[in-house]
Amino acid sequence: MFLFIPVLVIVGISFVDGINNITCISTPGQKNTSTILTNLRREMRNAGIGIYVVFSDDEHGSEYTQPYDKRRDWITGFRGSSGIAIISLRTAALWTDSRYFSQAEEELDCANWLLMRHGNENVPSPFIWLVTEAQQTAWSLGTTTVFTSSAWWSLANTALQAIGKQLQPVDDLVGRIWPSNERPKASQKPIVKHDIKYAGQSVTQKLLRTTTELQRFDATVTIISALDEIAWQFNLRGADIPYNPFFKSYAIIYTNYIIHQPKLFVNLAQINRTMYPVGVRVFNYSTFWSHLNETVNNSTIEKILVSAQASQAILNLIPYDKLILPLFNSPIERIKAQKNSIERKGMRDCQIRDAVARMKHIGWIEQQLNNNIPINETQSVDRLLYYQKQQVRFKFPSFHAISASGDRAALVHYSSQPATARPITKNQIYLLDAGSQYLDCTTDITRTHHFGIPKDLEKRAYTRVLQGVLAIADAVFPTGTYGRSLDYLGRMYLYRDGMTFGHGIGHGIGHFLSVHEGPHRIGSEYNEYEEPLTDGVFISDEPGFYKPGDFGIRIENDVEVVLAHKSIYDKRQFLRFDTITFVPYERSLIDVTLLTNTQLDAINKYHAKVAQILEPLLKDDEAALNALRSRTKKIHSQSVTTTTELSNKAFISISSPSLITFVFIFYYA
Amino acid sequence: MFLFIPVLVIVGISFVDGINNITCISTPGQKNTSTILTNLRREMRNAGIGIYVVFSDDEHGSEYTQPYDKRRDWITGFRGSSGIAIISLRTAALWTDSRYFSQAEEELDCANWLLMRHGNENVPSPFIWLVTEAQQTAWSLGTTTVFTSSAWWSLANTALQAIGKQLQPVDDLVGRIWPSNERPKASQKPIVKHDIKYAGQSVTQKLLRTTTELQRFDATVTIISALDEIAWQFNLRGADIPYNPFFKSYAIIYTNYIIHQPKLFVNLAQINRTMYPVGVRVFNYSTFWSHLNETVNNSTIEKILVSAQASQAILNLIPYDKLILPLFNSPIERIKAQKNSIERKGMRDCQIRDAVARMKHIGWIEQQLNNNIPINETQSVDRLLYYQKQQVRFKFPSFHAISASGDRAALVHYSSQPATARPITKNQIYLLDAGSQYLDCTTDITRTHHFGIPKDLEKRAYTRVLQGVLAIADAVFPTGTYGRSLDYLGRMYLYRDGMTFGHGIGHGIGHFLSVHEGPHRIGSEYNEYEEPLTDGVFISDEPGFYKPGDFGIRIENDVEVVLAHKSIYDKRQFLRFDTITFVPYERSLIDVTLLTNTQLDAINKYHAKVAQILEPLLKDDEAALNALRSRTKKIHSQSVTTTTELSNKAFISISSPSLITFVFIFYYA
Repeated sequence: MFLFIPVLVIVGISFVDGINNITCISTPGQKNTSTILTNLRREMRNAGIGIYVVFSDDEHGSEYTQPYDKRRDWITGFRGSSGIAIISLRTAALWTDSRYFSQAEEELDCANWLLMRHGNENVPSPFIWLVTEAQQTAWSLGTTTVFTSSAWWSLANTALQAIGKQLQPVDDLVGRIWPSNERPKASQKPIVKHDIKYAGQSVTQKLLRTTTELQRFDATVTIISALDEIAWQFNLRGADIPYNPFFKSYAIIYTNYIIHQPKLFVNLAQINRTMYPVGVRVFNYSTFWSHLNETVNNSTIEKILVSAQASQAILNLIPYDKLILPLFNSPIERIKAQKNSIERKGMRDCQIRDAVARMKHIGWIEQQLNNNIPINETQSVDRLLYYQKQQVRFKFPSFHAISASGDRAALVHYSSQPATARPITKNQIYLLDAGSQYLDCTTDITRTHHFGIPKDLEKRAYTRVLQGVLAIADAVFPTGTYGRSLDYLGRMYLYRDGMTFGHGIGHGIGHFLSVHEGPHRIGSEYNEYEEPLTDGVFISDEPGFYKPGDFGIRIENDVEVVLAHKSIYDKRQFLRFDTITFVPYERSLIDVTLLTNTQLDAINKYHAKVAQILEPLLKDDEAALNALRSRTKKIHSQSVTTTTELSNKAFISISSPSLITFVFIFYYA
Repeated sequence: MFLFIPVLVIVGISFVDGINNITCISTPGQKNTSTILTNLRREMRNAGIGIYVVFSDDEHGSEYTQPYDKRRDWITGFRGSSGIAIISLRTAALWTDSRYFSQAEEELDCANWLLMRHGNENVPSPFIWLVTEAQQTAWSLGTTTVFTSSAWWSLANTALQAIGKQLQPVDDLVGRIWPSNERPKASQKPIVKHDIKYAGQSVTQKLLRTTTELQRFDATVTIISALDEIAWQFNLRGADIPYNPFFKSYAIIYTNYIIHQPKLFVNLAQINRTMYPVGVRVFNYSTFWSHLNETVNNSTIEKILVSAQASQAILNLIPYDKLILPLFNSPIERIKAQKNSIERKGMRDCQIRDAVARMKHIGWIEQQLNNNIPINETQSVDRLLYYQKQQVRFKFPSFHAISASGDRAALVHYSSQPATARPITKNQIYLLDAGSQYLDCTTDITRTHHFGIPKDLEKRAYTRVLQGVLAIADAVFPTGTYGRSLDYLGRMYLYRDGMTFGHGIGHGIGHFLSVHEGPHRIGSEYNEYEEPLTDGVFISDEPGFYKPGDFGIRIENDVEVVLAHKSIYDKRQFLRFDTITFVPYERSLIDVTLLTNTQLDAINKYHAKVAQILEPLLKDDEAALNALRSRTKKIHSQSVTTTTELSNKAFISISSPSLITFVFIFYYA
């Protein structure tokens, strides 16, 4: 699954003209939030603020949150995972990005809320809106700092500075008005040990690594609030949050961890004493704030390292002169991303298990289609889960699978629902982006299928995307290289045909943790928290192409960053990628005439390896074996274009269903 | 010529360990700056400061300055173009980057100055040094704001904030102590009109473009201090600064330019009234500050646009609430970079003239070598100038040519001097990076030659660099793409062989202006002032490889960004490059076995075009014709590796002179 990072930009352009484009239409199916807004505005007045910002985040900046924490969903009706709500005493507006425009139109209470289609022309950014609203009221502005990232807080205050205002911290006002009979209960699921045979290193070994890094920054202590970092550091896993084996927690880690043992804060009702990590003091979650306050004001604590992703509530407590600036990534994020040898082995091994499930699933689809048994997008996901569950150490999916048939595949964040699921047929594209959480890894694999005869344009787009996948996989680069420098490789073949796509090419992948993790990525946009690629980092390689209303293509392999050669000139280490996903590409969608000989070789070698690995594991499943064999048999080159590495011949085609005839003419020097 | 942008980074690492590495050795040839420093420190005390920062810049942030403005050179002895001097009452230190380390060791007054090798491990950045020195004195710190960029001022103040200090503006203290009999006179060279037949647009047409851009930002007025922007805007050229046709000046341009005519500030002694641009009020240079003060405090002036590259002296005068923030590039920089059709034609045409001069020059070198007449690096540059001067509209070189033989070619910023010039021979690399200022363009061309039989490693490196040149030239990309996304293309072939290089791949090129201009570049580093490539932008394409003590390779073509196809999906415009330099590559240095068929085709097509263009123009010069023909004749493919686009076979070679035997082993999946 690709990771979409919305970029919040402050623009200096007037947005008054576009205000009519930012509403949505009220329908009876939408939630009525009138009472909620009345109550919320009462609490806002009581707190002395006239503008209140509500985020999707929990206290830990989690990508997924538990139902108990879905404050923004509850006040707006909109259930998409990404959005910012800004409520003033006179208006209420919700920002979400293009992935969620149609979902927001359906779910948002449009009678009470303005829909701000973030990124569309003339739609003001939340910052601009905040400043404009703030200028028109004498009231203060506030957010609940425990749900506000320090980065957002600082950007918003910079924007507000121009009009002489600033944000004010307020209590959780939504929590205050949310009736307990309406509010889902907080998760009470048990926290369990993550066995060292999967984790590869003991808590003590990991503490040594973390504190060595703290020494490099002359830090006395670090405060950890990211749930994947705590799970990794203490070899514990939970189930508070969907798709992620996390539990709500904080930690305080002292550089001198022998004398000052780390403190872990969890809901004690969720953990049995036998699960307590050795050498770690465990306290109740609610006592974190008093411990933090005591720690940061302790005179023996000189320098405190806090991640830029920590909440403003944490930052507010730390005396400025003790803070290590500029804020950057947590050292644990960096250490965790560079997997140890056991983790690396797990990441590779369970890709094979996931590939077995995928091949069985493809075999099943082909069988149903051949027997004219109707199947749809959600049935397909259910069946995949059935095969995934047969694999050892499988726990649960790593995200809500994107199972998209036909033009739905063009919706990059499509979420199929049983009531509206589309049939999977022989004459349409079928895109499946799904991943697993195993005890020994996390996976994320996308394949785009066609079970009949695809259109020329579908083949061309698929082949261009595949060439991008191969170009990324083939990259060689010195240490110090950022993923952003490689991004163009995944797009350049599409560009030859005038095709583009709007998401990043790669995101870091955790080890039985989050399917999206930092600090590595492959994307064209500059991100100040991106770090250079290092060996042992696992990342996705997933270019795509989406033709709205027609079809969508995405191919996603997981790759491992491994050591390559060393420079003889200055001993600099070079790195390359190792593709660890072993699911064949879709033979029917490959236009061989577009490939170079090297690319064809790479595909044939990959398929030979896939066949060699999977055949013995699929012996008992004839449909899966057929699906594997038909896809992995050697593809022969067609002599026409073997010498054109980047084929640039004019491309004439009829694009159905829009029936636009188009001719590409490429000018060459 | 590549553009090296030193990156000033604030690091939090202790530098005490490295203090021994930052000195240089005092020699009798170095200037004695004892008296200068005594006088300067007296002036510092009088001004109430204990630390003073002196930059290489003039008032306009110029890359090259006139001798009159070389304050930093005069106080340190060091004549390199890039450096920052920080003088405290007890120490004096000069920072320069790796291009200038050896020059600084020779020239800097090492008895009085610490040499800070910027970028070397354990060498503190100027900011860290400033903070450390400031902590140890009760005195204030100061710079002369007219020579200080607002970006530097702001970064330094952020660093100083941590210790509760800030910079204080002081007068030009160096100017105060520089005896008039020692100081070169300020340039008095005349300012002349730049004919519209070369400029392509009248001053009024350009004002319309500039003010349209100002309207987009709701600006009432803009203040221009960059000399190339003023020369472009007013169709004037001067000769105050070496290699650049600039004259010292400021301008104030009002959005409503019909009612409020633009003001141009120049030394009136340098300009004849007949040269005054129509519709522009011309004032004496020295009156700029009072005009600026009056303008910015005028109540009808609401919003003022100033470039982030303007001096802190300008910024200090502007009321904060009138400033358009965040500071970014001057709109003129952007408009100027996107050349008009006449400028584009000029840029293309005079490349042919420059190519004629280069071919005659190569012919001459070959003739001298064949006749065993000794020639050296500086004689070679003199002879090139002789041929350049034969070309119509040639004015002067666009920078100090880099003419480097043998291992000197590994010094990326080498400057040959008659006394120490190396001979050019048949058994060594000869690298020539030279450019011209013509009335109708600016050029910048690098070719690496070998007039005998090169070593295998030289051929391999040359070919890898050439593959990078071709990969950049072949790129296709949508509008909105930054040069930094393409950078990897120029390096990826070198990476296969474990080779790297430390400079950017491309810089913008002016039109009879500066050979380096913004806001476009191709480089891996993020630069917040970089803007996306647009058609009509001219940029260099110049990867390289440098093996210290052995040899260096650089190949530089100038390319034009031109329109390619449009996307049929969303009508997005695609762009590509057109190579406009027509000097053949060095046949003897090309290892054909490394090339793909497509690359070989591209080289053959390029050479056919070069031959077709240049043959008729070299009819009267047999040596040049021979040099052209031997280089442009068709290269035939050698069947061995035609199918390996990125040849990865193990590469075994003996690297002379260090005689290291090395084996590259490439792991492949």
